[in-house]
Amino acid sequence: MNEPQAAPSARQHLPDALRGQLSSRFRERFTLSEAVRGHHGHDESHFPDALPDAVIFAESTEEIAEAVQACRAHGVPVIPFGIGSSLEGHVLAVRGGVTLDLTGMNRVLAVHTDDLDAVVQPGVTRKRLNAELHGTGLFFPIDPGADATLGGMAATRASGTNAVRYGTMRDNVLGLTVVLADGRVIRTGGRARKSSAGYDLTRLFVGSEGTLGIITELTLRLYPVPEAISSAVCAFPDVDAAVRTVIQTIQLGIPVARIELVDALTVQAINRYSKTRLRQAPMLFFEFHGSPAGVEEQARTVQDLARDHGGMDFEWATRPEDRSRLWAARHDVYFACLALRPGSRGLTTDVCVPISRLADCIAATRADVEASGLVAPMVGHVGDGNFHLVMLVNPDDPEENARAEALSRRIVLRALEMDGTCSGEHGIGLGKQEFLVAEHGEGAVDVMRALKQALDPDNVMNPGKVLPAPSRTASPA
Amino acid sequence: MNEPQAAPSARQHLPDALRGQLSSRFRERFTLSEAVRGHHGHDESHFPDALPDAVIFAESTEEIAEAVQACRAHGVPVIPFGIGSSLEGHVLAVRGGVTLDLTGMNRVLAVHTDDLDAVVQPGVTRKRLNAELHGTGLFFPIDPGADATLGGMAATRASGTNAVRYGTMRDNVLGLTVVLADGRVIRTGGRARKSSAGYDLTRLFVGSEGTLGIITELTLRLYPVPEAISSAVCAFPDVDAAVRTVIQTIQLGIPVARIELVDALTVQAINRYSKTRLRQAPMLFFEFHGSPAGVEEQARTVQDLARDHGGMDFEWATRPEDRSRLWAARHDVYFACLALRPGSRGLTTDVCVPISRLADCIAATRADVEASGLVAPMVGHVGDGNFHLVMLVNPDDPEENARAEALSRRIVLRALEMDGTCSGEHGIGLGKQEFLVAEHGEGAVDVMRALKQALDPDNVMNPGKVLPAPSRTASPA
Repeated sequence: MNEPQAAPSARQHLPDALRGQLSSRFRERFTLSEAVRGHHGHDESHFPDALPDAVIFAESTEEIAEAVQACRAHGVPVIPFGIGSSLEGHVLAVRGGVTLDLTGMNRVLAVHTDDLDAVVQPGVTRKRLNAELHGTGLFFPIDPGADATLGGMAATRASGTNAVRYGTMRDNVLGLTVVLADGRVIRTGGRARKSSAGYDLTRLFVGSEGTLGIITELTLRLYPVPEAISSAVCAFPDVDAAVRTVIQTIQLGIPVARIELVDALTVQAINRYSKTRLRQAPMLFFEFHGSPAGVEEQARTVQDLARDHGGMDFEWATRPEDRSRLWAARHDVYFACLALRPGSRGLTTDVCVPISRLADCIAATRADVEASGLVAPMVGHVGDGNFHLVMLVNPDDPEENARAEALSRRIVLRALEMDGTCSGEHGIGLGKQEFLVAEHGEGAVDVMRALKQALDPDNVMNPGKVLPAPSRTASPA
Repeated sequence: MNEPQAAPSARQHLPDALRGQLSSRFRERFTLSEAVRGHHGHDESHFPDALPDAVIFAESTEEIAEAVQACRAHGVPVIPFGIGSSLEGHVLAVRGGVTLDLTGMNRVLAVHTDDLDAVVQPGVTRKRLNAELHGTGLFFPIDPGADATLGGMAATRASGTNAVRYGTMRDNVLGLTVVLADGRVIRTGGRARKSSAGYDLTRLFVGSEGTLGIITELTLRLYPVPEAISSAVCAFPDVDAAVRTVIQTIQLGIPVARIELVDALTVQAINRYSKTRLRQAPMLFFEFHGSPAGVEEQARTVQDLARDHGGMDFEWATRPEDRSRLWAARHDVYFACLALRPGSRGLTTDVCVPISRLADCIAATRADVEASGLVAPMVGHVGDGNFHLVMLVNPDDPEENARAEALSRRIVLRALEMDGTCSGEHGIGLGKQEFLVAEHGEGAVDVMRALKQALDPDNVMNPGKVLPAPSRTASPA
């Protein structure tokens, strides 16, 4: 960090003593290989790659504690890494250091079917967990689209399509094991369904993006697989009609499990990429969970609401294979969008506003997109008031990138004016730091800095993420 | 605090300069009156009264900030006070200082019906909020029994009868305004339904019991009043049968709104106190929320489960007045229990265990009560695995008090062995500090201490609560 002019090969950044220590401790699981470092210096965001100086494939909490202790002794950053599906640059080694790859810690340690919880290592992905739960009658609902690791999902407070019913990672992590900056290992929370015993450390680490500690074990809440599930898609004459259907559904308290908006351009992308034949119009994707009668009742009510707003072609998918195809298409939407413009990178917005402002927010955003000339399909977890633009930009066109960045800023600042948040679910990472003060105020951000200082005084835990430097604030556009 | 031998009239504890400053600032809302201090040195717990040196009736965030700043400058403790319904000594001025009475801050500042949220001052009670919501079609579900203030409920992470469906204060506070130890005012969270923007300060202050800051405004999540509500009571041959009915209900994922256990002794207390004529047997109280068909379906399923476990006299209360009488009786249970033994004080336990251990935990607890010779009715939010004993002790009988304390310890340590928590909903306060390390480990409690140190380095915010002194730990019984 004192060598801004260093050659691209960053090996020289690691002090010899540390390199020797880690190498003899972790042997072939410690690597300086350019290819491996390249893989770990990259995520799904539009930020430039930033390679770590070394990568360790860690296999236990103890190993992580040892590695953290060693790195800290030399003031060297430590960055946890799952599958690299971050959209905000969380895992980029912007100040060099050692990346701890946790994908080897991929065991489901316990499933307590009677208590509806599971204990997992951080490298278990959500699909893997659900595969292991097969036959237990339980499932883990949080679904951010990507088959992310549960450690990464907790670190970014992820959510996704069915947060409207089941909440986010905030609500579904019961407890954690965390390695702190000084190598101490702590446990937070527990297996009781609720507790008033002391400060809520679990929630402090959930969403802290590796900047306060490294999550090495998670106790997660599970849910009974609903007796009945049905899915539907419905096309609307325009986005506004779809959004108004959503708002009414939420305000009536109908417990939909998923209610997702895709605009016409996104439908086009999906049809091309997933070989579906959906009507090229704004659509809502629904999923209902409950008893057979309950699901039918919910669906009937929502269908009526949709019809009131001009919804058409209400199509049901009650067979599991039809549902899977539908949601697979929805899940692939990010890649479907990227494929609309081959060679482009996605710059993804992630605002979330109170539901009463959603229609206005989306309408103004659509007008902005139109004015910008950018190709930017829209998709949203609209039941929560959360939606994304995937702005498809040519990475080699600085002017286009600047236009996209300007649009992103504008969308965030509008959401903040509407009492919303700059990040519904992707986190702050590198990309949203400048808005943290605009959203929370200097005082609250100072408190966050004080917490960081208290737990990581040497700033070795994923430095450069979440917290803006004290002077870096966004002014209204 | 440097005068352990000081006379009971503690006015001399306040430095003259501070007394003068506060008196001229707050005039008649600053008081040294013995009666007022007495009221504020007392709660519903069994701990001895501990009077503050003065009381301020605060009316705004700015006033609280001024008072905190002034007190801190003199190293004088500050204690927030709502209605004093704490069961763990939270508001007792164990180190003297100035109590800030927040009951004058009792305005509902905004109700956003379209967004299902409300902004309230901390002195608004839950019943008052629901009264103001009358006619909006919305309600605030969290119900700890007492008509507590919402500020106090947030500070202790309260929950109560319907947490099984709606969660606790943890889940239902969207944002806060907080006065910090240095008098700064911050805002946390916001009105978006979800956010990944930075550390979760809201959850850090919820449950921090006034030790990190004083909550001066809350944004709360509201819910649509269910289309249909029905309540029922059902008697069981024994507690175990009732508990097993609960466990199956939860494991099947039936979304009951309330599922409460009262043992036969408690039923006797209720019948006497509330003039009801319930069969004197262990009972479950149920409430179901949903559509008319959904409620009927839930109720039928639960009735079948109850019958399988020997449940009898399943009695419905669908008329609002019958439901109100039933739940009023349930809510008065604490006072009904105290009336079983006039002149006694209640020493209340509050453990919560994973649901699979609940039957064992309750059975062992009942055996302990029997062996102890204490009068201790049991009542539980059993859908969460949380239950209470109200041990009725003669305040003038040290031996009996010691026996009750020993039983309480034994129950807590058993719950911890079962992966449970020492406090499901009452908080740590004075009463559970010795178990904090046993539950979370020294490392996690050290992290809590580090957070306290970072935010309140002079230890003026409700000192002596939550965090045990570093050496004070519980050893297994």
